[in-house]
Amino acid sequence: MIQTDILIIGAGPVGLFTVFEAGLLKLRCHLIDSLGQPGGQLTEIYPKKPIYDIPGYPTVLAGELVDNLMKQIEPFNPGFTLGEPAAKIEEVGEKMYQVTTVKGTVHQAPVIMIAGGLGVFTPRKPPIPNIDKYEDNGVAYVIRDPEVYRGKDVLLAGGGDSALDWTIFLADVANSVTLVHRRDSFRGALDSVEKVTELAESGKINLVTNAQAVGIIGEEKVEGVTVKHKSGELEDIPVDSFIPLFGLAPKLGPIAEWGLNIHKNAIIVDTKDYSTGIPGIYAIGDINHYEGKLKLILCGFHEGTMAVQSAFSYIYPDKKLSFKYTTVNGVQGLPKEAEAAVV
Amino acid sequence: MIQTDILIIGAGPVGLFTVFEAGLLKLRCHLIDSLGQPGGQLTEIYPKKPIYDIPGYPTVLAGELVDNLMKQIEPFNPGFTLGEPAAKIEEVGEKMYQVTTVKGTVHQAPVIMIAGGLGVFTPRKPPIPNIDKYEDNGVAYVIRDPEVYRGKDVLLAGGGDSALDWTIFLADVANSVTLVHRRDSFRGALDSVEKVTELAESGKINLVTNAQAVGIIGEEKVEGVTVKHKSGELEDIPVDSFIPLFGLAPKLGPIAEWGLNIHKNAIIVDTKDYSTGIPGIYAIGDINHYEGKLKLILCGFHEGTMAVQSAFSYIYPDKKLSFKYTTVNGVQGLPKEAEAAVV
Ligand SMILES: Cc1cc2nc3c(=O)[nH]c(=O)nc-3n(C[C@H](O)[C@H](O)[C@H](O)COP(=O)(O)OP(=O)(O)OC[C@H]3O[C@@H](n4cnc5c(N)ncnc54)[C@H](O)[C@@H]3O)c2cc1C
Ligand SMILES: Cc1cc2nc3c(=O)[nH]c(=O)nc-3n(C[C@H](O)[C@H](O)[C@H](O)COP(=O)(O)OP(=O)(O)OC[C@H]3O[C@@H](n4cnc5c(N)ncnc54)[C@H](O)[C@@H]3O)c2cc1C
Repeated sequence: MIQTDILIIGAGPVGLFTVFEAGLLKLRCHLIDSLGQPGGQLTEIYPKKPIYDIPGYPTVLAGELVDNLMKQIEPFNPGFTLGEPAAKIEEVGEKMYQVTTVKGTVHQAPVIMIAGGLGVFTPRKPPIPNIDKYEDNGVAYVIRDPEVYRGKDVLLAGGGDSALDWTIFLADVANSVTLVHRRDSFRGALDSVEKVTELAESGKINLVTNAQAVGIIGEEKVEGVTVKHKSGELEDIPVDSFIPLFGLAPKLGPIAEWGLNIHKNAIIVDTKDYSTGIPGIYAIGDINHYEGKLKLILCGFHEGTMAVQSAFSYIYPDKKLSFKYTTVNGVQGLPKEAEAAVV
Repeated sequence: MIQTDILIIGAGPVGLFTVFEAGLLKLRCHLIDSLGQPGGQLTEIYPKKPIYDIPGYPTVLAGELVDNLMKQIEPFNPGFTLGEPAAKIEEVGEKMYQVTTVKGTVHQAPVIMIAGGLGVFTPRKPPIPNIDKYEDNGVAYVIRDPEVYRGKDVLLAGGGDSALDWTIFLADVANSVTLVHRRDSFRGALDSVEKVTELAESGKINLVTNAQAVGIIGEEKVEGVTVKHKSGELEDIPVDSFIPLFGLAPKLGPIAEWGLNIHKNAIIVDTKDYSTGIPGIYAIGDINHYEGKLKLILCGFHEGTMAVQSAFSYIYPDKKLSFKYTTVNGVQGLPKEAEAAVV
C-alpha cells in the first residue's frame, strides 16, 4: 500500500506542478495516471506542437514543458503509479481516503486532488457487439510490443497515421498484414499514404478500402474478421490478430461514479480553494468547472496552488501556514517516499 | 490623448502578461507605470534573484522573466507611458474612462485594469518637516543624472548599497562628498564598504557615522544640512545638494482615492472575473484581494487571463467569444497604436 499526503489523480501538467506547490509546504505527493507516462494531453496528443500562452515562454513545445515541469518537481521526489486508471475511492478512517486502481494497486492519503483533465484516454472501439470477449485474445487497441505479431496474420483497421505507420512497420514483421479502411482516402501523412499504396501494389500487404470490420470469427480467440464491403458483400478474412486503431478518446470514466457534483463531464468546485464539497477532495485543471472556467494550462497552475494551501489547513488545522517567496527561501527538497510510507 | 481598448495601470509581470491574453482576443493595450521601466517589483527590487515557482521554469532570474514577457507580448505592440504615476480617473462617456498621470498625460479606454502591485514606489524620506520645500531645489531622493552634481558639494545619507555606490561614484564627480549614516556599520556589499572606508581614510570623502541629518539650511534652496551626532551635538555642514537614499517603499497612492472597495491596501474583487464592482474596472495581481489570495506571480497570470475574457464581453456584449488554443491557432499580432488611436 502506498501512503502519502496528497494523492493526485492525473499526471498532466496541472497534477505535476501541484507537486511543486505542495512540496513548498512540505507535503508529499503521489500521482496515479492511466497513461504510461506523465504529461497528460501534452505528451499523449501534441508533444511536438508549440504552445504560445505559457506565461514567460514566447513559445515552448508541449513535450518540453512537461520535461521542465518534471525537472521542477524533482526535489520533491513524487511517487508515480503509471499505466493504471484509478477506479475506486473509499473512506477508510478519519481524514483518510483509499484509492484503488483497476490493477489493484492501493493508495491512502488524507487529501485527494483530482487532476484528471478530460478523463481516461480510452480507445475508440469498432461497433462489434462481442469484441470485449476477444480483448487480450487476439484483439488489441494499442500496439505496445510489435514483436508479439512476428509471424502472425494481422488485420489492422483505421485510416489515420497510427494505422498507416503500424501497417508499414508490421509488413516486415508479421506473416501477413491486411489494412481495412472504410474510405479510399487516408487522413495520414502523405509519405505514409504513398508507402502503404506501394506495399499494396507490390503485394506485400493486403489493402481493403471502402470496407469495414463488422464481426469477429473464433471460439475463444480471434480466428478471422468479417469485413463488409461498400457493395454490401461480406468477406471473411482469416487472421489471428485484429487491431482496430481508431484513436483514443478521453472519458471521465470511474470518477463520474464518485458522488461528486458533475456538470458537463467536469467536477463543480468552489473557486475559493477548488474544493469539491467533499472534505479533502479537490479538483483542479481541465477536469473542474466553475463560472467562467477556461481549460487552459496556466489556469490549472493557479488552481493547484490555491488547492494545496487549503489542503495544508485541512491536514493540519492547528498549524499556521507562513507564506514565503521561493526567491527568499529557496526550494528545500523532500526525501523519496520513506520506507515507512510504502507499506 | 492616448486611446486604447484596455488601459493597464502597472507594468509589472501581471500587467505585461495581460497584454498577451488581451491580444489573443484582438484587444489592444496601453500600460502606465510610475517607474521608468517595465517589470514592477521584479525589475525594481530583485532583477538578479532567481525565482523558483514560475511553472515550467525550475529557475529563472526575475529580470529574465520580465525580458521573456516583453518578448511574448511584442506581437501585440502595447503602448507604454513610463515614469508617470496614474493620478486621476474620470468617467467621460458611456463605457469610457479617462486616466490622467501626474505629468498630465491623458489616456482613454472603456476598460481599466489595475495591476498596480504594491502601489507606487515612493522614496522613504528623512523626518525633516520642511524637506518638501527643497525638493528639486537641492534635495533629491534618486539620482537620475550624476552629471548634475559635477563640481557641487553633496551630502548623501543612508547605509545601504545605493548610498555606498553613489558615494563612490560621486567622489570623482562632485567637488566634495559627505556621507552621513546613523550607525557605524553598513548594510551594503563588502567591497563597497571597503572602498568607502578607503576613500574616507584618504580624505577623498567625508564620512560621518553615528549621526543623522535633522535639518536643512537655506532660504530658497539647500545651503547646508544640520547633522546630529550620537552625542547630541549638532553640526552644520555647508553643501548645495542633499540626497537621502533610504530606499523606495510602495504606497497604494492615488488609486486609494478612486472609490474602490479597499481591504488592507488592496482592492476587493470578485474571483469570477477579478472585477472591482465598478463596471469596466478590474484589479489583478498583488493589488487585489479575495479570500485565500496569494501574492504570487503565477496567480496574477490567471487573474489577468480571466479578467480579459470578461472585459471582452463588457466591451462587445453582442459578440460571441470563441475560445481557441494558441497551439491550434497560433498568435496573430496586432498593429502598433494606429494614427487614429493616438489623438
Ligand atoms: C491539440 C491541443 C492543443 C492545446 N493547446 C493549448 C494551448 O495552447 N494552451 C493551453 O493552455 N492549453 C492547450 N490545450 C489544453 C491543455 O492541454 C489542457 O488544458 C491541459 O492538458 C490540462 O491539464 P490537466 O493536467 O488538467 O489535464 P490533462 O493534461 O488532460 O491530464 C490529465 C491526466 O489524468 C489522467 N486521468 C484521468 N482520469 C484518470 C483516472 N481515473 N485514473 C488515472 N489517471 C486518470 C489522464 O490519463 C491524463 O494523463 C490544448 C489541448 C489540445 C488537445
Ligand atoms: C524580494 C521579493 C521576492 C519575491 N519572490 C517571489 C517569488 O519567488 N515568487 C512569486 O511568485 N512572487 C515573488 N515575489 C512577489 C512578486 O514580485 C509579486 O507577486 C509580483 O511582482 C506582482 O506582480 P504585479 O504585476 O501584480 O505587481 P508589481 O510587480 O508590484 O508591479 C506593479 C507596478 O504598478 C506600478 N504602479 C502602481 N501604482 C501605480 C500608479 N498609480 N500609476 C502608475 N503605476 C503604478 C508600480 O510602479 C509597479 O511597477 C517577490 C517579491 C519580492 C519583493
